[in-house]
Parts: sequence; C-alpha cells; structure tokens
Amino acid sequence: MTKALYVGSFDPITNGHLDIIKRAAKIFDELTVVVAINTNKSALFTPQERVNLITQVTRDLENVACKSVTGLTAETFTQEKADVLVRGVRNGEDLNFEIQVAGMNQYLNQEVETVFIPANSKWEFTSSSLIKEVVKMGGSIKGLVPETVEVLLKSRLK
Amino acid sequence: MTKALYVGSFDPITNGHLDIIKRAAKIFDELTVVVAINTNKSALFTPQERVNLITQVTRDLENVACKSVTGLTAETFTQEKADVLVRGVRNGEDLNFEIQVAGMNQYLNQEVETVFIPANSKWEFTSSSLIKEVVKMGGSIKGLVPETVEVLLKSRLK
Amino acid sequence: MTKALYVGSFDPITNGHLDIIKRAAKIFDELTVVVAINTNKSALFTPQERVNLITQVTRDLENVACKSVTGLTAETFTQEKADVLVRGVRNGEDLNFEIQVAGMNQYLNQEVETVFIPANSKWEFTSSSLIKEVVKMGGSIKGLVPETVEVLLKSRLK
Amino acid sequence: MTKALYVGSFDPITNGHLDIIKRAAKIFDELTVVVAINTNKSALFTPQERVNLITQVTRDLENVACKSVTGLTAETFTQEKADVLVRGVRNGEDLNFEIQVAGMNQYLNQEVETVFIPANSKWEFTSSSLIKEVVKMGGSIKGLVPETVEVLLKSRLK
Amino acid sequence: MTKALYVGSFDPITNGHLDIIKRAAKIFDELTVVVAINTNKSALFTPQERVNLITQVTRDLENVACKSVTGLTAETFTQEKADVLVRGVRNGEDLNFEIQVAGMNQYLNQEVETVFIPANSKWEFTSSSLIKEVVKMGGSIKGLVPETVEVLLKSRLK
Amino acid sequence: MTKALYVGSFDPITNGHLDIIKRAAKIFDELTVVVAINTNKSALFTPQERVNLITQVTRDLENVACKSVTGLTAETFTQEKADVLVRGVRNGEDLNFEIQVAGMNQYLNQEVETVFIPANSKWEFTSSSLIKEVVKMGGSIKGLVPETVEVLLKSRLK
Repeated sequence: MTKALYVGSFDPITNGHLDIIKRAAKIFDELTVVVAINTNKSALFTPQERVNLITQVTRDLENVACKSVTGLTAETFTQEKADVLVRGVRNGEDLNFEIQVAGMNQYLNQEVETVFIPANSKWEFTSSSLIKEVVKMGGSIKGLVPETVEVLLKSRLK
Repeated sequence: MTKALYVGSFDPITNGHLDIIKRAAKIFDELTVVVAINTNKSALFTPQERVNLITQVTRDLENVACKSVTGLTAETFTQEKADVLVRGVRNGEDLNFEIQVAGMNQYLNQEVETVFIPANSKWEFTSSSLIKEVVKMGGSIKGLVPETVEVLLKSRLK
Repeated sequence: MTKALYVGSFDPITNGHLDIIKRAAKIFDELTVVVAINTNKSALFTPQERVNLITQVTRDLENVACKSVTGLTAETFTQEKADVLVRGVRNGEDLNFEIQVAGMNQYLNQEVETVFIPANSKWEFTSSSLIKEVVKMGGSIKGLVPETVEVLLKSRLK
Repeated sequence: MTKALYVGSFDPITNGHLDIIKRAAKIFDELTVVVAINTNKSALFTPQERVNLITQVTRDLENVACKSVTGLTAETFTQEKADVLVRGVRNGEDLNFEIQVAGMNQYLNQEVETVFIPANSKWEFTSSSLIKEVVKMGGSIKGLVPETVEVLLKSRLK
Repeated sequence: MTKALYVGSFDPITNGHLDIIKRAAKIFDELTVVVAINTNKSALFTPQERVNLITQVTRDLENVACKSVTGLTAETFTQEKADVLVRGVRNGEDLNFEIQVAGMNQYLNQEVETVFIPANSKWEFTSSSLIKEVVKMGGSIKGLVPETVEVLLKSRLK
Repeated sequence: MTKALYVGSFDPITNGHLDIIKRAAKIFDELTVVVAINTNKSALFTPQERVNLITQVTRDLENVACKSVTGLTAETFTQEKADVLVRGVRNGEDLNFEIQVAGMNQYLNQEVETVFIPANSKWEFTSSSLIKEVVKMGGSIKGLVPETVEVLLKSRLK
C-alpha cells in the first residue's frame, strides 16, 4: 500500500496540476493533495477555497483526498504516514529547484522521499502565475483550468 | 513579405536589445518593436519615453517602427497583422521561460509563431535590470546602452 | 522577400522535422530544406533517398524546395542567397549545441543569421536516432513519421 | 499494491544504482530491476552476469527481483504488469534525456508512467562509464560499487 | 602570492558558504570575505553582524579576513588588490547567473577574473533564503549553519 | 604560492584553450598545462606534437609549463604538487560534465580541488572537434587557433 502526498500552493489548481494528480492517483494506492499555507506569501484564494476547488475537480478519483496544512512539509509527511512526496517537473530549471527542496525535506526528515512526474508536454507552458496574468489582461484561459476554476478566477480578477 | 514583432518592456533599451533589432530588421521585411505596458509592474521610464528612445536609436533602420501597447501580445499579433514574434535568448534558462511564453501565446492565438535569435555573445551579460543596478551603484555603463539612454539613465537614477 | 534554409541530416525526416518545415514555410516567403551530406558519418538513407522523401511529404507546401549539399552550411547560405538559417530547439541542451553551431557559422560567414523555432511539445520526444532504435526493436512508430517514411524505415531496418 | 520497474543497462551496477533501488524498494510495494539487453551496444558484462551481480547485492531487499529482457521497455511494462517505471536523475541534462525516453515509452504504450528519483548527491558524480574508465587507468573505485562488482571489474579490465 | 575575494550578502553565512571559504583558503594564499551591502535590498542581519559572524566562524583560518563594503565589486577588486573573485556554483542555473555577473564585473574592470568552485554536493540544497524560511516555519537547521548562526537566527526569527 | 594544473586533450590547442591558459597564468603563480594521454581514444596529433604546439604558443608566459601524462589526473595532481585543477566552462552542460569529473577526482584524491573559469564569450562556440570538422570541410579557421596550429591542422587534414 503506497501513500503519496502532492504538496503545493495550488493558487488556483490548473489542468497541469490536475494531470499530475490523475497520473499519481493511477500510480499510487492513495494520494493526498495538500494545500501548503504560506503566511509569508499573499494568495488570491483562501486555503479553504483552494481545498474546495481541488476536492470538487477530483471527486471522481476515489483514492484522492485533499486538505490544507500550515507548517513544514517534512512534518506533514510523518503526520500523514506518507511513503512519498510527488512533484511535477517541466524542465531542467524546475528540477534544480525541486532537487533543492527535496534535499531540504530529506534533511529535515530522513524518511521523506520525493519522486518527480514529468509534466505532460501539453501543459508545459501552464503555471498558476502565468494563467492569473492572462486573466488580468483579459485573455481566455478556457481549457487551461477546470471550468469551475475559470469562472471563479474571472470574477475574482475582474 | 514577412512582418515581425519584437515585444518587451525595454525599460530601457540596451545594446543587447538593439543588436536583436538590427539582426531581425535584416532578416525580416518589416519589424515593429512593441513596448508592452504592464500595469502590474512599476517601470523606470514611461511607455512614451521608452518608445521615443527606441525610435531615436533605430532611426537609421528604415523597416523598423515602434509603438507601445497594453493588452495581450497574442491580440497585438493579430492587430499588427504580424507573421512572427521575435525574442532574444542567451542560455537554457532564457529558453525555458521563452518556451512557456511562446506556448501560452500560441494557445491564446493559434496564428502566433515565435522564433528566438541567439544573443550576440558580446551582450550575453547585459540586461536592463543589471544595468540599472550598476548605475545606482555609480558604475559606468558606457557602451552597454546607446548614449542617449546612458545620459537619461544617469539623470533618472542620480 | 525572406528566404530561409533548414539544414540537417534528416536521416530520415520525422514529423518533428515536418512540423518545423510547415511553420517555417508559414513564417518565411521561401524555405529550402537542405540535406547536409556528412561523409564522416554513416547514414541509413542515401542523400537522394532523403531528398525524395522530403520532397514527397512537402509537395503541398508551394514555397518549400529541397536539395542535398556537401560542404559548409556557411557557404551554402551564400550560394542559396538565403536570409536566415532555421533550426528547431526542444530544450536548453539543444540550445547550447545550436548556439555553438550558429556561432561557428557566423564566424565563417558574417552574413549568416540563425533563428530557432521552439519544437511543438507534441514532438518533443522524437528524434531520428530514437525512432530508428524503436524500429530496430520492433516497436511501432505510426504517427511519428510520415507514412511513406514508416514503410521505408521498416523495410530498411527489418 | 504498486509495482515498479527500474530498467537500465547496469554494466555494471554502481552504488548510485543501488541507492535508487533501495529507495524505490522503500517507496513501492514491488520493484523489478530489468537489465535491458541492447544488441546494438557492446557491453563489458553479459546480461546473466549483470543479473547475478544485481541479485546478489539486493538479496536483503525482499520486494526486489531482477531479470534481463530484450525488446522494448514499453512492452516489458505490460508483460510485467507494472504500474510505473523508475529512473534516477542527477541534473537538468539527465532530465532532458529521460523526458524524451519517457515520452517515447508513453507513445508506444499509453499505460506507461515514469517517475524520476533525484540521485543522492553523494553519488552524483558516479556512472558506469566513468567508473570503468577509472579502473582502466588503475584508479581505486572502492566505495563506488559493491565489493563483488569491484573485484569482478578489476579482473575483467586488468 | 594570490589574493582572492569571496563577495556575497551572507545573510547569514551557511555551512555551504563556509565550505567554499575553507576550500578557497586552501587554494589561494589570501582570502577576503566581503559582505556586499545592497541598500536596495532588506536584510535580516546588519552588515556588522554578518561580518562578526563570518569572522568568528573563520577564526581558525589564518589567511582569511572579512569586511563589509558598499559599492561595486569591480571597484572593491582594485581597492583590495585582489587577483581573483571566487564564487560557488551548484548547477547550470547558478552558472548562468554567475556568468552574467562575472561578465559585467569584467566589463566594468578589465582586471577582474572570476573562478567558480563547485559546491560540495552535501550542501547542494542549502541557501540562506531556504534556511530562513525553514526557521520561520519552526524547522531545525542544526548542521546547516554554524551553531552561533543557528542561535542568532532562531532568536531573530522567533 | 599557488600552483594550478590545466589538464585536457588539447587535440589541438584552440584560442579558447589559450584564453583560459592566459587568464589562469594571471591568477595563479604557476600553471602547468597537462596533455592527458588517453589510450582508449584516437587522437589527430601525438602527445609530443600537442606539447610542442602548447609550449610554442605559450612561450611568452613565463609561469606556464607543459607536459604530457598518462594515468589519472588525481595522481598527476599529487606528483605535480598542485594546489588546484583549472577547467573552462561555457554553459550549464559543460558544468554538469565538469562537476562529475571534479567529483570523481576528489573521490580518488581528497586533496584535489577544481575551479572553473568562465570561457570568454568570444570563444564560446569553439571546440577542438568542431574546428577539425570545419577544416575537413574546407572552411577557414583563421583566428580560431594559433597560426602554427592552423598550418599544421590544414596539412594533417588535407
């Protein structure tokens, strides 16, 4: 029985994130999507809004749960009795950043292992920040985020 | 007849930008340099100042025009009846960022094609931000930007 | 009037190459695909076979011609009265190699300019060498190369 | 129940490989190490020798099996009823190569998913080829490969 | 007689920085660690606090001195009669940034030469910013920074 | 007193190598250029020819010596009583390879330290292999290698 955690800010969830969730849910027996609350960064959606959106768009995935957590991922890993952290990577630059975070997590908690799932090349250009910028400039993000997220983003950034 | 757009913030134009402009003007029949106005970012020079500087330093290049635009590059591409977007790249990191932006532009407007011109290695270390930082610290940027830009930068950052 | 050259070994042409050809043909007024004959490397198909395959799969693209050439690209550039060289790039590693080749070409012939077209992420994992390896191991490459190429490859590598 | 495959040439297995095996065996319920036989490449050890070495150095890992296979990994994936392919990555360059191979594997067999485990920085500089080169030049590789491998390598490359 | 400068913000010094200092002190006859004061950036520790910390943790290294400087590194290089600048690099991304800074320093002062020391892989995941973030979230950074720094960090970020 | 070694195949020396030699000779008190003889690789020039060429083009650099060596660099480091190994790097890819070699050298001999000198962007596109290829195809390499090397290369590759 293998339990994975997918930790991120998901502000908001994009179809790129959703693709990683679906593929991780297929690989691992259990997947918990964790909205990491970072009090040092301003966010567009509250933690609860983000959890609601993720829960809604993953409702068909039986082995996927979602929660929000403050504090260190290395501690959440133990609290959640996880076996592995999952992260998506698009290119060498993502990898350099993720190797640093994975190294720090394993330093803080020797049990923590991280695996990287290569992003589907279809979503290679998506990121929450670029999508929010396009919405602010009046662009259509249809197909880049789940519909419920699209509606909420437009109203929030009108 | 091939029309290219070179879109950026140009805050201000550097000799690295100017090198890309001259080479793109040689490759393509028509080149329009577009100062992209981003209301979410503070700039040192107003859009009009940036357009004036670019117009002045490219006055000898007959097939080069310059304007400032708010809004999405993907829309400007259609409004300007362009055939291609041009961007300069210095290294793998620039490329990762540019591939993401090019992917989003093509998603928003299927007609958009982007080509990358390899930066002349002579200007590999220049960027508007690093040049502004050097001026703030009293360094000489002679030869890194056109003279008119150098004079204006010094007075603005005195 | 802008004439581009797309120089490569094309041993054989893949759908990744064909995607670059179609997009370059859309950007530039004229495109010549040049099969570069490298006497130091063994090839699976003869130069003429490669030219025939390319000519056949680009027959609907009116502004695209194809020929094979021995000798330096920097010299072919002048002989063909080209304005620009076109190359596809998938990631930072491709870029490092291409920047080196572009730098040497411009050193040998100052007129040579090179632009890079970002590979369509759909074809990011294709390359002639990986496709040939898959065929040798009995895998199906349907959809990765034009059909005529698929048939010829299978018979050649049976 | 999650079954992973770790496919490679392992010519021979190094402590870097062994580290990935141990960590994958901890993450997944079952791990099969597959020695991929590539008839196009010359190898130092026979497939059976490589399987024997791997089997011996992983004997304490109950959920780890080892076998050699010719043919496509995408087919082995189905034959072995695997859930995921596992590969180690050290840097951006490894990732670019692995993303290409993972993309081809998923093209050949849609069920194939690949995850990358970041190499332990301790083994970042090891590779079978560099280790063989050091042995050929009389260097000591103590600690870089399991002892049995060290003994066999020295005798084979004397 | 070779004198090196190691210039950075060191806000605060980490064991990764200390590793570079020890190795540079072994390579070069003289090493001056320079705390670069950047009035445009907010810092956690004052320049004097940073100098005190560095002086304390390098007290056993006879050929190492420390000072803080405002102004351009290219000018400090001449004032300090240095022969070379030393910087640590962990991966390709660090290198791209460092090549840009080294290029600008050499443009501002032709005498400036920069050499890069590969970070010890043990400290590959450490950086002042990530360490401060972990402390803010209540994590233990024991072993990542010298003890005196650990104590001061905890009190400062309580 | 700091003694550096610059180890490579130099088959043949290029102006890119020479630039690294001149800059290393300026930084360090003593520099020995070591032609590493690799019996597993075919070379265009004999070790002695390479040493003669290097000796000739560095005759004005008083603190530079040259020799050829078989065997491990880690052992040569001790025999030559060196303080540091010097290597040139052009981009992230070079760095990944050099970090691996530096890691292995330090593993084989804990005393070995390696520093990287950023290649002058002017020579970023040069490499012995690319230069030999251009000569084979009849191209002019004037200015890319010292004149004596140019003459010898042309006659050898006629």
